[in-house]
Amino acid sequence: MSTLRIGLAGLGRMGRIHADNLAGRCSVARLGAVYDADPTVAREAGERYGVPWTTSFEELLAHPAAEAVAIATPTGAHAPMTVAGAQAGRDVFCEKPIALDRATTVATVEEVRRAGVQFQVGFHRRFDPDWAAVAERIRAGELGEVALFRSSLRDMASPPASFLAGSGGFFRDVTVHDLDVARWLVGEVVEVTAHGAAVSDPEGFAAVGDVDTAVVVLRFASGALGVIDNSRASGYGYECSTEVMGSRATARIDNPYRRGYEWRTPGLTSRDLVADFQERYPLAYAAELDGFARAVLDRSPVQVSGEDALAAFDLAEAADESWRTGRTVAVRYTGTGYARASVSEVSA
Amino acid sequence: MSTLRIGLAGLGRMGRIHADNLAGRCSVARLGAVYDADPTVAREAGERYGVPWTTSFEELLAHPAAEAVAIATPTGAHAPMTVAGAQAGRDVFCEKPIALDRATTVATVEEVRRAGVQFQVGFHRRFDPDWAAVAERIRAGELGEVALFRSSLRDMASPPASFLAGSGGFFRDVTVHDLDVARWLVGEVVEVTAHGAAVSDPEGFAAVGDVDTAVVVLRFASGALGVIDNSRASGYGYECSTEVMGSRATARIDNPYRRGYEWRTPGLTSRDLVADFQERYPLAYAAELDGFARAVLDRSPVQVSGEDALAAFDLAEAADESWRTGRTVAVRYTGTGYARASVSEVSA
Amino acid sequence: MSTLRIGLAGLGRMGRIHADNLAGRCSVARLGAVYDADPTVAREAGERYGVPWTTSFEELLAHPAAEAVAIATPTGAHAPMTVAGAQAGRDVFCEKPIALDRATTVATVEEVRRAGVQFQVGFHRRFDPDWAAVAERIRAGELGEVALFRSSLRDMASPPASFLAGSGGFFRDVTVHDLDVARWLVGEVVEVTAHGAAVSDPEGFAAVGDVDTAVVVLRFASGALGVIDNSRASGYGYECSTEVMGSRATARIDNPYRRGYEWRTPGLTSRDLVADFQERYPLAYAAELDGFARAVLDRSPVQVSGEDALAAFDLAEAADESWRTGRTVAVRYTGTGYARASVSEVSA
Amino acid sequence: MSTLRIGLAGLGRMGRIHADNLAGRCSVARLGAVYDADPTVAREAGERYGVPWTTSFEELLAHPAAEAVAIATPTGAHAPMTVAGAQAGRDVFCEKPIALDRATTVATVEEVRRAGVQFQVGFHRRFDPDWAAVAERIRAGELGEVALFRSSLRDMASPPASFLAGSGGFFRDVTVHDLDVARWLVGEVVEVTAHGAAVSDPEGFAAVGDVDTAVVVLRFASGALGVIDNSRASGYGYECSTEVMGSRATARIDNPYRRGYEWRTPGLTSRDLVADFQERYPLAYAAELDGFARAVLDRSPVQVSGEDALAAFDLAEAADESWRTGRTVAVRYTGTGYARASVSEVSA
Repeated sequence: MSTLRIGLAGLGRMGRIHADNLAGRCSVARLGAVYDADPTVAREAGERYGVPWTTSFEELLAHPAAEAVAIATPTGAHAPMTVAGAQAGRDVFCEKPIALDRATTVATVEEVRRAGVQFQVGFHRRFDPDWAAVAERIRAGELGEVALFRSSLRDMASPPASFLAGSGGFFRDVTVHDLDVARWLVGEVVEVTAHGAAVSDPEGFAAVGDVDTAVVVLRFASGALGVIDNSRASGYGYECSTEVMGSRATARIDNPYRRGYEWRTPGLTSRDLVADFQERYPLAYAAELDGFARAVLDRSPVQVSGEDALAAFDLAEAADESWRTGRTVAVRYTGTGYARASVSEVSA
Repeated sequence: MSTLRIGLAGLGRMGRIHADNLAGRCSVARLGAVYDADPTVAREAGERYGVPWTTSFEELLAHPAAEAVAIATPTGAHAPMTVAGAQAGRDVFCEKPIALDRATTVATVEEVRRAGVQFQVGFHRRFDPDWAAVAERIRAGELGEVALFRSSLRDMASPPASFLAGSGGFFRDVTVHDLDVARWLVGEVVEVTAHGAAVSDPEGFAAVGDVDTAVVVLRFASGALGVIDNSRASGYGYECSTEVMGSRATARIDNPYRRGYEWRTPGLTSRDLVADFQERYPLAYAAELDGFARAVLDRSPVQVSGEDALAAFDLAEAADESWRTGRTVAVRYTGTGYARASVSEVSA
Repeated sequence: MSTLRIGLAGLGRMGRIHADNLAGRCSVARLGAVYDADPTVAREAGERYGVPWTTSFEELLAHPAAEAVAIATPTGAHAPMTVAGAQAGRDVFCEKPIALDRATTVATVEEVRRAGVQFQVGFHRRFDPDWAAVAERIRAGELGEVALFRSSLRDMASPPASFLAGSGGFFRDVTVHDLDVARWLVGEVVEVTAHGAAVSDPEGFAAVGDVDTAVVVLRFASGALGVIDNSRASGYGYECSTEVMGSRATARIDNPYRRGYEWRTPGLTSRDLVADFQERYPLAYAAELDGFARAVLDRSPVQVSGEDALAAFDLAEAADESWRTGRTVAVRYTGTGYARASVSEVSA
Repeated sequence: MSTLRIGLAGLGRMGRIHADNLAGRCSVARLGAVYDADPTVAREAGERYGVPWTTSFEELLAHPAAEAVAIATPTGAHAPMTVAGAQAGRDVFCEKPIALDRATTVATVEEVRRAGVQFQVGFHRRFDPDWAAVAERIRAGELGEVALFRSSLRDMASPPASFLAGSGGFFRDVTVHDLDVARWLVGEVVEVTAHGAAVSDPEGFAAVGDVDTAVVVLRFASGALGVIDNSRASGYGYECSTEVMGSRATARIDNPYRRGYEWRTPGLTSRDLVADFQERYPLAYAAELDGFARAVLDRSPVQVSGEDALAAFDLAEAADESWRTGRTVAVRYTGTGYARASVSEVSA
């Protein structure tokens, strides 16, 4: 079994998830070396996993154990590191988002394309076995024509204000996942209408100009409608579930329980709920790095390209604009992201 | 046990459901007499249930066995019969909608109020044991502040074009049920944004200027968001389910299976789905007439008043307008239905 | 719609359930008259339901409003009243058990047969829509050859000792229901092995020579195995569920939740459980009286005959004997109940 | 993170599962070297996983990369290899069963104890997260006194006759898993009564003196009852589910669906079922080797000892005897397996 050694940059929350997966759960991708700007963190990880470590990203790129790189650093470093990796001839896996602004996102996608390396962005849901199975049945035509798409992504509680300030806003940070899934399962979008509310902490969210609850309505080029609901204050737990209603069948992807048993007490039966994305997706993060490694080894297309990331980002921007203006935003897929469309374009 | 004999007007699909319930499932309400314009239908029902029958609504109103009346005639007759019943001093249960236009609806509500009789409109969902139980827990504060309301109402297949033409349109005919539930469980609405599509039969629906799929977004006075999805082409079966997400708890009302067993074959387990509202609501229609009868006997308030019906109708009209104009419609509850509000009113 | 007026004898717990159903939920069977030995109870019921009442069972039998009789009196009166009813030419519905001893049970069944009237015994589960649907699919051959039958009947908490003393013991009082279902769904039995324990109150149950927990293993004539578990101390609620595993399919009849919604709080989702047989079977008791009324009106066979009741009783006796002796009891169906078989008969 | 390199002996079906887990999913245990008697198989695995390979078990034991050994060879080699490993001072993980006869099992357990090494046997269910979570809650007293234990283990279809002949029989091969779980979750057993049937292929199973369907009833020392049902011909799929009913709560461990989505078509919703133990237990086999590695590294007790394996084997023998004789077998736990008890011992 051919494997690919990956140099992992960044050892924060997502970086550690990737490191654990590369060290112990992936089957094709392997942990080759680690980088973190903080020498304590970098050394500790190097020792824990028994791999070379460095505090210089250039050194990581140059290390023979980094046959490809995975970038899980703070958001601001995603784009420059991706570009540096690509220019060094390394295939790159990068956590989402590529950047918080469109110009940088576009420039990064173009730079990577010019360098001719593989580039995959971290939309993990496409690699979860349940989602992948449904996508395959939709591709096979078992669902028929899609009439309605419905998706929920909800967090149990808000992250700290410091995180929110640098998150790019609710639509770019959270909704973007459902927008990627919408394109993946149903196709391109022609209209975005977004509604937001700050329910859990009205003052706090107003202070950063953001919301904790949103409903986004999509109209697809096919004529189908879509609706996404998102929350940072679901209270009960993490939720990620989707329904696709078609002319021949309807698929509903569950939000699983945390454990596979029920507990009965007088008059009541209860089940544990998953608390966060780690509990919800025990397999998807390992699978996305294995998928990346396979694409690199086989020179086959990655399953989430930079162009996919750009398209989802553009839809998130449209949602943000719709929320701010109170108007539907008409969009047109150009092959490289979305352009604004006039309403007559949509109707035509 | 005190009972109330009801004169039932109209023996079409809904009329027969009510007749069966009054004859055999209600515990307080009883079938007193039946009216239908078609003498064959009226006689047959009279003989089947062993009650007096007539082809004259005036006769029904005058009959001593019609201590109150229930109106399940074609829509156009709802308002005049309600008014006639009220003027004859009869308490009135009337199927929804009161009328397909606002003026008639308002006039009917006013006429009934003037007559001082009890008046209940047929939003059956409020009487289903599951919905009623959730409503009670919300009223008791167990759910906390509501952040998100989500509701689906879907039919398996479209009714014939002839029905659609006289239905008042998708929002007034279908969405109105979810709009009533939204007000009942969450409170008054300040904004309505609707999106529609004709997916199952684009030409057919275009011909009658209607849609078969809709997504309606609500903003509540409390700041909460709501989203309703409706379909006349769900394919798999009938669906009526609702979620209310609050700060302390989240309630999800299921769409039940048709039968309480699963059937396992190699690699697959399957369950029957309910096909229509009759299978979905085996108890609610009987309970609403019992609720009406109890309110009449106790002189207590009915659980769905003419004012409630008017408010739901007004929200359906706002949805229809929003769909046609592509704009959010701001509304303001006046105590007797909704008025249009300017956007600044909403923001204030 | 032809209906049958039934004279109801006995207005205890089961009697009141039947009275309510006959008065308000049955569609063919109607409450014709009531009898109870206690004049206060009888009068109150007569007035509540608006039917004639009496404290003399002879009077009930003679009353024209008692076209047939339903017997829900204390167990000791079941057999003599059934016989009296049959001799008076009345078709009889009788609550289970016919009697607590075999001789009386056999004599009653014979007496009724001699009188040539219809006789149905109260095994309600056969009339529940879920069970009836599964039975029909098994009859149609969809399940293939049965390999394993599994059934649970559990009560939340033990009845008072006074009830236990007159109950005939756990196997005759509780297990008998599962034994009837086993015969109905799978066929005749050739071996019974029973195990019992008194877990909730060892001294109390020892004092009456009874158990609160039992496991009964069946071997069917077809070669299939069956297992029944019963409890009077399930703690969490009432349970009645069954699985039939066949060569072509496996059916599992659920124990339903009390309400059709889930309630989510941090980390947990919960559902209400049914507490007793009344919540578990909202429809079956009404359906069994309608089934009886239809059989009487159509002169078609009843769905649970006296012979069925005798067979289930005999299997319960075999279970009781097996539990007391610690040995498997071999049985042979004779057409009128079960006889003891020698082991060689079984093997042959 | 300290890791343990394991020398894996045997590369059949179970061996490959362990090899994949050690190579890619375990976090503490690592694949150190592989042995198989077949040089093609051994070399192929060595090359696939990049570890040393050998066709000599002595060489494996001597290799420094085999810090401990895991034995997944054909059953007949389990005991001698375990003994050889222990005598070489290696901690040993061995697939179940240790042997097909009691003398060898006892001798092996004693030999290992004498050698003073760690010894874990492959009852994987104890390492599944769902089962482990329930066990922990039972240990913590949340369930109260156990009244009833119920467990199902079912295979979709029978293995070939050649496998059956060397399997030790249904009770030693299949039921033994549920017997281990019974001891683990509830405690020691005092009576075993077993019933068997050959339903799928009566002649085939008669030829090897075995059954494909069994029901085993247990009486625990605590007074609780237990019931196990097993099948080699479930038809619909693999099943492994357990219920423990206690005085304070009841736990039900599910048999999960294969995928986390439902697929709705007209009138029907369906879900995929798991087909075999690999789909049912994606995590347990990796977790059991990690558990073994942790016990070795920490010198803490293993979670399934040789004594546990012997006790489960003894209960399986008692079940086999009970099935063959048609009588209940009374047993007594001795600290090292079970001895036969007289009935008076049980009652005392």
